[in-house]
Parts: sequence; structure tokens; C-alpha cells
Amino acid sequence: MAGTRFSYVKTFELPDPLLPETYMVLRLDGHGFHKFSDTHGFAKPNDERALQLMDAAAAAVMDEFRDVVLAFGESDEFSFLLRKKCTLYNRRQSKILSTLVSFFTSVYVLRWPAFFPDTPLLYPPSFDGRIVLYPAQQHVRDYFAWRQADTHINNLYNTTFWALVQQGGQSTTQAHETLKGTVASGKNEMLFSRFGINYAALPARFRKGSVLVREVPKVEPELDVDAAGGVSETDACQDAVPPTTSAPSKRQKKVVVVLHEDIIENQFWDDRPELLA
Amino acid sequence: MAGTRFSYVKTFELPDPLLPETYMVLRLDGHGFHKFSDTHGFAKPNDERALQLMDAAAAAVMDEFRDVVLAFGESDEFSFLLRKKCTLYNRRQSKILSTLVSFFTSVYVLRWPAFFPDTPLLYPPSFDGRIVLYPAQQHVRDYFAWRQADTHINNLYNTTFWALVQQGGQSTTQAHETLKGTVASGKNEMLFSRFGINYAALPARFRKGSVLVREVPKVEPELDVDAAGGVSETDACQDAVPPTTSAPSKRQKKVVVVLHEDIIENQFWDDRPELLA
Amino acid sequence: MAGTRFSYVKTFELPDPLLPETYMVLRLDGHGFHKFSDTHGFAKPNDERALQLMDAAAAAVMDEFRDVVLAFGESDEFSFLLRKKCTLYNRRQSKILSTLVSFFTSVYVLRWPAFFPDTPLLYPPSFDGRIVLYPAQQHVRDYFAWRQADTHINNLYNTTFWALVQQGGQSTTQAHETLKGTVASGKNEMLFSRFGINYAALPARFRKGSVLVREVPKVEPELDVDAAGGVSETDACQDAVPPTTSAPSKRQKKVVVVLHEDIIENQFWDDRPELLA
Amino acid sequence: MAGTRFSYVKTFELPDPLLPETYMVLRLDGHGFHKFSDTHGFAKPNDERALQLMDAAAAAVMDEFRDVVLAFGESDEFSFLLRKKCTLYNRRQSKILSTLVSFFTSVYVLRWPAFFPDTPLLYPPSFDGRIVLYPAQQHVRDYFAWRQADTHINNLYNTTFWALVQQGGQSTTQAHETLKGTVASGKNEMLFSRFGINYAALPARFRKGSVLVREVPKVEPELDVDAAGGVSETDACQDAVPPTTSAPSKRQKKVVVVLHEDIIENQFWDDRPELLA
Repeated sequence: MAGTRFSYVKTFELPDPLLPETYMVLRLDGHGFHKFSDTHGFAKPNDERALQLMDAAAAAVMDEFRDVVLAFGESDEFSFLLRKKCTLYNRRQSKILSTLVSFFTSVYVLRWPAFFPDTPLLYPPSFDGRIVLYPAQQHVRDYFAWRQADTHINNLYNTTFWALVQQGGQSTTQAHETLKGTVASGKNEMLFSRFGINYAALPARFRKGSVLVREVPKVEPELDVDAAGGVSETDACQDAVPPTTSAPSKRQKKVVVVLHEDIIENQFWDDRPELLA
Repeated sequence: MAGTRFSYVKTFELPDPLLPETYMVLRLDGHGFHKFSDTHGFAKPNDERALQLMDAAAAAVMDEFRDVVLAFGESDEFSFLLRKKCTLYNRRQSKILSTLVSFFTSVYVLRWPAFFPDTPLLYPPSFDGRIVLYPAQQHVRDYFAWRQADTHINNLYNTTFWALVQQGGQSTTQAHETLKGTVASGKNEMLFSRFGINYAALPARFRKGSVLVREVPKVEPELDVDAAGGVSETDACQDAVPPTTSAPSKRQKKVVVVLHEDIIENQFWDDRPELLA
Repeated sequence: MAGTRFSYVKTFELPDPLLPETYMVLRLDGHGFHKFSDTHGFAKPNDERALQLMDAAAAAVMDEFRDVVLAFGESDEFSFLLRKKCTLYNRRQSKILSTLVSFFTSVYVLRWPAFFPDTPLLYPPSFDGRIVLYPAQQHVRDYFAWRQADTHINNLYNTTFWALVQQGGQSTTQAHETLKGTVASGKNEMLFSRFGINYAALPARFRKGSVLVREVPKVEPELDVDAAGGVSETDACQDAVPPTTSAPSKRQKKVVVVLHEDIIENQFWDDRPELLA
Repeated sequence: MAGTRFSYVKTFELPDPLLPETYMVLRLDGHGFHKFSDTHGFAKPNDERALQLMDAAAAAVMDEFRDVVLAFGESDEFSFLLRKKCTLYNRRQSKILSTLVSFFTSVYVLRWPAFFPDTPLLYPPSFDGRIVLYPAQQHVRDYFAWRQADTHINNLYNTTFWALVQQGGQSTTQAHETLKGTVASGKNEMLFSRFGINYAALPARFRKGSVLVREVPKVEPELDVDAAGGVSETDACQDAVPPTTSAPSKRQKKVVVVLHEDIIENQFWDDRPELLA
């Protein structure tokens, strides 16, 4: 047959399974987002629309891939935790990596107009990603703590930096100089004394990043993302566990919710033992 | 500092460089495109709009990444050849794979309305990908021959199958039965005698797939993709080689062009020694 | 300089670090030992000299590489557990694998005459090896249980097989036939009723394999291997923990000892929490 | 069955095939051979017995593994070229690496007494190894050129260094100082003017290293290794190509021979096109 004499080239495709029963963390980052955010007029230091769009794309990933049990996002990056027992695509690295990054990108572009109704996309945004394996629960805890600590550090710096520029009239060069060598307490003090900003009162989204988990929604449904056309009960996957009573089951469906709370301390993890099961 | 005690988790990020001086072929495939094409009303056996959108996304990849010197597409898959000496991202596999698949996806979604003006995207399309290394020129030749032979085999089958269904009134089950065990000549004969279709006269795009290379455009610019808002001289990257005379240089810029010609025989490769350099 | 223009070839050496904080198990097997054991007249079903030589080589590996905390051997194979925190050779896979297999082989050949004084080596014995990573304690427990269960299964089969041949006068073909489809209890019964062999009374070395750990020796030193010139207090490495009293410290040095006891149940592991630390 | 519930641990054994149709170079190095050579009284700057033992072990590797078509050795290292089409052990990296390094080590220890009749082995010598892939002929040429250039550089340095110490009465510290910053011509001149040594007249083995290939022996058989009990026509494998005439075929069997000639220039390779086939 026509194709037969060429098909030996398939033997060059080497297997790439990931070690079983380890936690996978897939982290993706915006590719050249410094320029992308400038070109598309993102607000500084944080653009709420852009962050919500990231959250919506991440929530869609979790709706599509049940093995993703947790996601954490800040700025133009998102980290996804796949459960230890995950056998998605037989744990083939390239397949998992490319599929999830592609899906995230697709949602990001598709939902852009819902979050930026007045800002057309001038060129295609893209993301790169990698998968890191963690053998133990503590590593996963520390990974997400590392990202949330990074969120805090970056946000405090950026908030102070842009206050110096936008309210203090400094050039960006001057602002960098002003901040050189300062510690966290110094920046907090500077924000408060010079600009009247109480850092702790800023939106939790900016200070804590976004934490996505599946939850049985409370009576008041989570509207965080919904408002902008994101996740809703309707398009969220149904939890695999069937309702155990004949009572109305709507309430028992888990949906992806977006939280902005601490994931460094024990409370978050103690409340959700299934994440590290 | 806050993040320091957690940052050890970075040591779990293992290096993944690809062997130097080997040809990389990145192949991506539509994820669940059987359902996607049904949902979005793709014409059978070939949807010209969908194929042109694939070509446009591939051309954008080539405009963005100069190391991609050749691309070949059929149906919902595309293969990209990165030149042997490519040092993009220090040849880190995950970085190259995720970035290119993400960029392709982004363009696919972004340009969708230009190719499907009357068909809104109902859900996010996505692609998976993998990188295969080939050590020698012959392997690369045979890889692309394999894909083009596959295009022919699939298209002949699908063309006959849908003729039996659409013109012959068979059910899809009957059509599969009719074709069971037939060879190429039998299908050609069946197309001609029962449906008056001369297979060789069908559009080359369907029979040969799409071949993307960089070329100095002829006086009549390549309009294949342009027509639908795709590649044009304007957004194509300028060739690195500067013009050597003071004559008008516009003609000497290479642009990505879409061909539908044979890449199995020697001619194509003999004309473009730079592809395998 | 002379070598400079060629030294680019070093860039083809790719990194191969193993995932941090996972247990490494290196298993090595005799290469072509069916023929090797025949050529060198190994006793059937078990050759005590050959097993002791294996133990001596494994003990030497543990004396040389402190990261190896446990070894288990049967027949012509040995498995080594490297502790989770091991950073030997920066966890480079090829370096660890080749060095340990080479060292084991070297000791095997070097000490051969001490165990086979009347049997010269007719050709070089060799071993192949591989490293497998296990993320959690339970995996390590189950790995070693798997090998010890295998020891039992093989030994029971071989013991019955060779009784049929050596005492029962069957050909090897007949003996295979006789054993086809039998279960453990059937073989035990056959051994006892036909050959007067009480399987449970056979040497523990044959039934349980060899388990090597580091221990503070009891007043009566472990002589198992010593007798044949193997491990002794003299050439064993000193434990890193210094003596905590002024009493004579000789007793407190840990040495590698060879045990033949159960490692499937909890007791062995409960007594040695440091193995899985 | 007893082993069944544990056998899942096998799923952690990941595949490790090497890219097809690339040249493999396996390089092994003595582990801690600075101390080993001191302890066993190796002559400085070169110990002929030790080099011949290395050659004998390498020749045995070539006799055992027909896929090894070339070997190059200097000091305590050896590089083996496996032909591009090699499918040994399905190209599994760990299997190939461990088996060849183990076999080399085994021969080294087994034949030690033949080369060092008066020097018993005081402890087990060992080697580490790695496999590097090269996609093209030129890379392989350059790899071996790199090693032979290294041989020259090291040997010229060591010869001058030990002349300064042994004949010039310098301490090793002084000798290092004397040589600091010198170039090749300076060392040649120093050897000749101060010690009457014509570097070019030193044994080719020291200056060029050892090159092992398979050849149809000339009427006078290669005795280089034979003399010390190494390679001989008797234990060399028969070449796969059958004799093409009815003439006595003994002469046409290829055997491994040890050469000490230039492999940087074209001649060596032009004479042996099969090496890079």
C-alpha cells in the first residue's frame, strides 16, 4: 500500500509516560505577556478583567478534565494539580501537556470578548507550559505555597511601584530606585503614609491570587466568574458520586468555584483532604 | 523572605533538552474533531473553510517561528519541520511543544470568524501535539511522504464513501460495507462509473494536502490564504537576508505560501535544499 | 588548542537527573546465568557458594555506597534500595546505574576464588541493571514483598522439580509435566510424601532470599559471609553516628549483616524505620 | 497467587529506548583511578600493563557485542561506537549501558593477573559509563577526534611533567609551576633540550591511544594483545560475511585488532567505510 514503505518513521516516536502515582503540576505562563498587556491596555498594577479571563479559562480546564482537582492563578500564570492516581492519556507527558495548554488557550481567546468587550484582540495570545512531578503531599503543599507567596511579593511590589508612578509622579526608573532594597514592611508603610493605601484592604484577588476547587455550591451560587460569562452550574460537570437520597439533587452537584484565600496554612488543605488523596 | 523556604520545589523541574542537530517534527491533531466537525457543520468529505483555517493557523506559526521551515497539513492535523540547527528555547521539549501548539490554537480560534462567518464557535476547539526527532534527511523525506500518502488514502476513501451516501443513497453502514476490501483502483473506478467523478480532477488541496514553505512571491502574489484574511505580504516576516542591490526590494521578501503539490518525489526537495540543510 | 574545534560534541551529552526525593531501587540480574551456572557446575536447585558470593558482592556495594540502605537477593539477582534523600552523583541516572553495577561485578569476579576455590572462572560473568523510582513507602514495601514472594514461588518450584529429577528419576521434561498446574500446597505435599522433604525445614536462605541491612552487631558477630572472606567488622564502614558514651565503642559500629527473614510483614520494617525515612 | 498483589510495582518501570538510527557512543571511565593507580603502583606517566589490560577488556567487549564496531582508549577511559542500525536489547538505554560496563569490568578484573602477575588487586576497580547519541557521521568523526586530541594533550603534559619530576628533580608542585602557561611547542622543546626526549619517538600507544577495529588479519597475526593473553584468532567471533571463494577461509575471519594510529584525518575512516555505515 502507498503508505507502507514510509510508515517505519513511526518507530521514532518514543514513549514518554510520567512516573505513576506522583502528583503532576502543570504550570502555564503567558508568552510575551508584558508586551501583550501593554498592547491591549491592561490596567496597572492589576487588570481585573484579565485576571477574570484567566480564571474562566482555568475553570473551563477543570470542567473538561476531572483529574485536575486544584488550580492556582496569578498574573498571567496558572498552575494545575492533577491527582496522584490520574491515568489521563496513560500519563503520556506530551499528550497531557499539549492538550491542556491548548484547551486553556482556546478558552482564553474564545471568551476574550466577554471580558474585554471594547478591546479587540490585536494578535494571538499564547502560553507555554511544563509538567513537574511531586512525589509527596508536602511537596504539593509547598509548591502552591511558593506560588501564593510569590503572588504576595509581586503584588506588594507592583502596587507600591505603580502608586509611586501613578500617584507619586515618579518615572518608572525613579520608582525602581525608590524601591531598591526595601522590605515588605517598608512598602506597606510607604503605601499607607504616602498614598493612604491600606494594603490589607486591597481586593483579595490581587493579594492572594485565584484558587479554583470543586465545591457543592451554597444556596447563593458563586457568581465570581459567572458574571462575565464564565463558569456556571449549567456547564459544570456533574460530580461522579450520585445523590444518595431522593431529595432534590441540584445542590449536591459540585461546581468549580474561584476563591481568593490562603492556601499556605493548614486550614485550606484540612478542609479538602480529597485534593491530596 | 516569604517565598524562600518553599522555593526548593523548583528543584523538581527536570531538564528536557532535545538531542542537538536532529530534525524536529511537531505534529498536532485536533482533539475530538469528529464531534467538533459535526457540531459545527463541516462539509463532507472535505470542508474547504476548515482546511483554509488550518492553513492560516499554520502559516501564522511559520511567521512567528522562523525555525519552522516547512509545514504539511491534512484534515485536522498539521506537521511542522524545525530545521536541524534550531536552538529555539535551547531545544527544551516542553517549552517548544507547548508554545507552538498554544500559538496554533490561538490563531485557530481568533481567525475562526473570518473563515466561518455564519457559524459561531459553540465550544473551544483544542489540539494535542508531540515532537518526534529524526536524525537524517531521508527520515524527514519519508515522514512527509508518509503523511501525504495518508492524505491520498484517506481522501480517496472519504470521497467514495460520501459519494455512496450523498449521491448513491446508501446509509453510512452500507457505504462502509461497499468499500470493504476495495483497493485504490476500485475506488477510482467506482467514483467514475457510478458518480461521474474523475478523482484526479478534484481540487489538489483535497488530494495532496497543504504544503507551506517560504518563498519569494511571484509577480502575482499567492492569494490562497489571503482571500480569507490569512497570510499576506503585510504580516509576513521579512526575510533575514537584506537586498543586495538598490533595486526595489519588495519582491525579495520571502513569505509563507500554501502549495498543494507532490512532496513524495524528489522535485520538491531538490528545488528547496534549504529545508534539509 | 588542538581539542577545541571538536569539543562541541560534548553538547550532545544530555542531563539525566532522577526525580528528587523518590526512592530508587536498582535491580541487577546475571546476564546469561542459566548457561553460566551450568558451565561452572552450580548445584541444583540452589548453590550455596554462588548465593554467598552474590551476598558478598552486595555487602561490598553497601559498604562502598552509604546511600544504599537495604539489599535483597535471590538466585542471580539483587535489588538495592537507595534512600529517598540520596543525592549521590546529583542523582544522575547513568552514573549511579553504571557505577553500582560495575562495582558489584568487580567484587563478584574478585571474590570468586574465595567461594569457588576449585572452580576457575571460564569466562567473564556480567550483570545488567536498571533503576526504578518509587514515590511512596508503600511502593517500596510492595516492591520488596514482590521479590520475596517471587523467591518463594521459584524456590518451591525448583526444589520440587529437582527432587523429581534427582531423586524421582524423571527427565526434566517429565518433571515439568508433573508440575504443570500444581499449586503451592500440592508441591509441598509432593515433596513430603514422595521425597520426605519438609519444605519449611529447608535453609531460610533458599526460602527467604538474602536481606542485607546495617546493624550494630550482637556479641556474637554475624559470621554468615565472613566465613568465606566476605563482610567483616574490619572492612565495614563506620556508622556516621558517633558513640554517645565513653564506653568501648567497637560494639556500636554498624556493619552490613545478611539476614534470611520475612520482609513482607510489618515487623521487619517497624524495627527499622530508618529504611524508609 | 502470592506475588500477584505486589506485581503492580512493575508498572513503575518506565521504557527508555534510545532514538533509532543514531550512533551510540558509550564512554566509560575508571572510578577513582587516581588512587587506584597509586595503590597498585602504576608507572608514570604511562603504565603499559594497565593500558594493555584496558585494551584487552575493550577487545573482549567487541568480541561479545558485534554491534560495537570501533573502540578508542586512553588512560583509564574507553569509548565504544555502536553502529547506527544497532537494535541490541531494542536500544534500551539502561540495559545496554549496564551490560557493557559490567562486562568490561568483569574482564578487567578477570584478566588482571595476566597483566599484573606480581601485583594482587587490593580492592575492586570499577567504572562508570554513559551513552551519548550522535545523529551524523561528522559528529562521530569529531567525537573520536576529540578524544584522540585529548590523548595527545594529556600525554604531552604528563610526559613533560614526569620528566621534570623523575629526571629533573622537581617536586610535583614545582613541575606544575614550570608547565603553567606553556604551549605544545614549548613542552616539546623542553623535553628535547632538558631531557633528550624526542616526543615523536615515544611509543605510539602513549601518543595516539588505542584504536580497536575488526580486520582480516595479515599473515603475521596481530600480537599486541595476544602476548598477554588477550585477543586471539581463536576466541574472536567469526565475521558474518561468508567466504566468497572455495579457498581456505581461515584468513578471511575478521578479528579485533589494536592499532595506535591517527583517527583525526580522513585516511582511517576512508579505509573503513563500514564504521559509519
